[in-house]
Amino acid sequence: MNNEKLILVDIGNTNFHIWENGYIYDLKQADKLEGRVFYISVNEKKEKEFLSLNPDAVNLKEYVKFDTDYKKLGIDRIMACKTVEIGTVIDAGSAVTVDFMKKGKHLGGIIFPGIFAYKKAFATISDKLNKDFRKPDDFPISTEEALWSGSIGSIICMIEKYGIKPVYLTGGDGKYLNQFIDGIYIEDLVFKGMKQTLIENGKWRMYNEK
Amino acid sequence: MNNEKLILVDIGNTNFHIWENGYIYDLKQADKLEGRVFYISVNEKKEKEFLSLNPDAVNLKEYVKFDTDYKKLGIDRIMACKTVEIGTVIDAGSAVTVDFMKKGKHLGGIIFPGIFAYKKAFATISDKLNKDFRKPDDFPISTEEALWSGSIGSIICMIEKYGIKPVYLTGGDGKYLNQFIDGIYIEDLVFKGMKQTLIENGKWRMYNEK
Repeated sequence: MNNEKLILVDIGNTNFHIWENGYIYDLKQADKLEGRVFYISVNEKKEKEFLSLNPDAVNLKEYVKFDTDYKKLGIDRIMACKTVEIGTVIDAGSAVTVDFMKKGKHLGGIIFPGIFAYKKAFATISDKLNKDFRKPDDFPISTEEALWSGSIGSIICMIEKYGIKPVYLTGGDGKYLNQFIDGIYIEDLVFKGMKQTLIENGKWRMYNEK
Repeated sequence: MNNEKLILVDIGNTNFHIWENGYIYDLKQADKLEGRVFYISVNEKKEKEFLSLNPDAVNLKEYVKFDTDYKKLGIDRIMACKTVEIGTVIDAGSAVTVDFMKKGKHLGGIIFPGIFAYKKAFATISDKLNKDFRKPDDFPISTEEALWSGSIGSIICMIEKYGIKPVYLTGGDGKYLNQFIDGIYIEDLVFKGMKQTLIENGKWRMYNEK
């Protein structure tokens, strides 16, 4: 048995998300990590920074098997969906991605602005739209309710339109969205897909997990 | 009969929209207008600039009657809805506003980012999201289709959710959205509301219209 520590890294557009011994944390900047590092990345610039500090890190993109007709599906979305047999997968980060799985096949997906991106877009249009969101009871009858409906409400509308249950949520704003969406929040959903990829390639048992 | 020319001005967050003798045009900057000017405004800074050049212009906000429970509804949205007895009113500008009317009463409304604001939000998140939108046939299976669904598709979803027909479209991107939404494009819908307000206050017949 190899006792070298296993580290999983998900390089996003804003943060480096790190999994280490069952603990998850974020780094704003690339850092040198001590252990056997497997990673995925959706941001080439951040990936280069990371590889300059961790030249032996292995990109899991080369190893993953995933059934989809979607052209150039982001590797983070692949990993988030990989362990889901059926359901809707929401990853709420810089963007909110919503992907649909049935019988282990990826049917397609949607990209919304992230919650922060919605707020910034509204505030940029007008100071009057620089408001907190509030869920309406019925028709939206205030700016706060109108903005909730035009962002979170519209994400929910599309999820309900395709109607594939259960709904899984992950990502930085996953817990926040779970207030409004009947679903299961799984903090490490992307890392579960990465682990599954390691298992499928016979690389998992080589390392210890707490 | 007063032969002074009537001019209507809708001061938005991006442009000055002008109605003059049945012609509509946009100004990027405030200008001195020759005639009897009535206006509405959602942008205080632009309104001040405009009033410094047109000190006799009359704000129609003081004259309009409109039935709604919505707090601080934008005067442009009031004017766009004012002549609609029943239906959904889409004003696609810097923001896309969607308002619901029944029996001449405003039931509520939604604020989405404008089409340009969506594109800018996506491009800001990642260069990979700096793509044209494309309407999917079924599930979105490319970035272009995923972005369409996460913006225009989600606007349509909310319109269909409330389901109040017919649908009227106006604003700079109204014609563009009409490609995807079964509705009636009315270029001068806001100005129709302003004219109706003038009529209700006995100010319309005083001026000539071509």
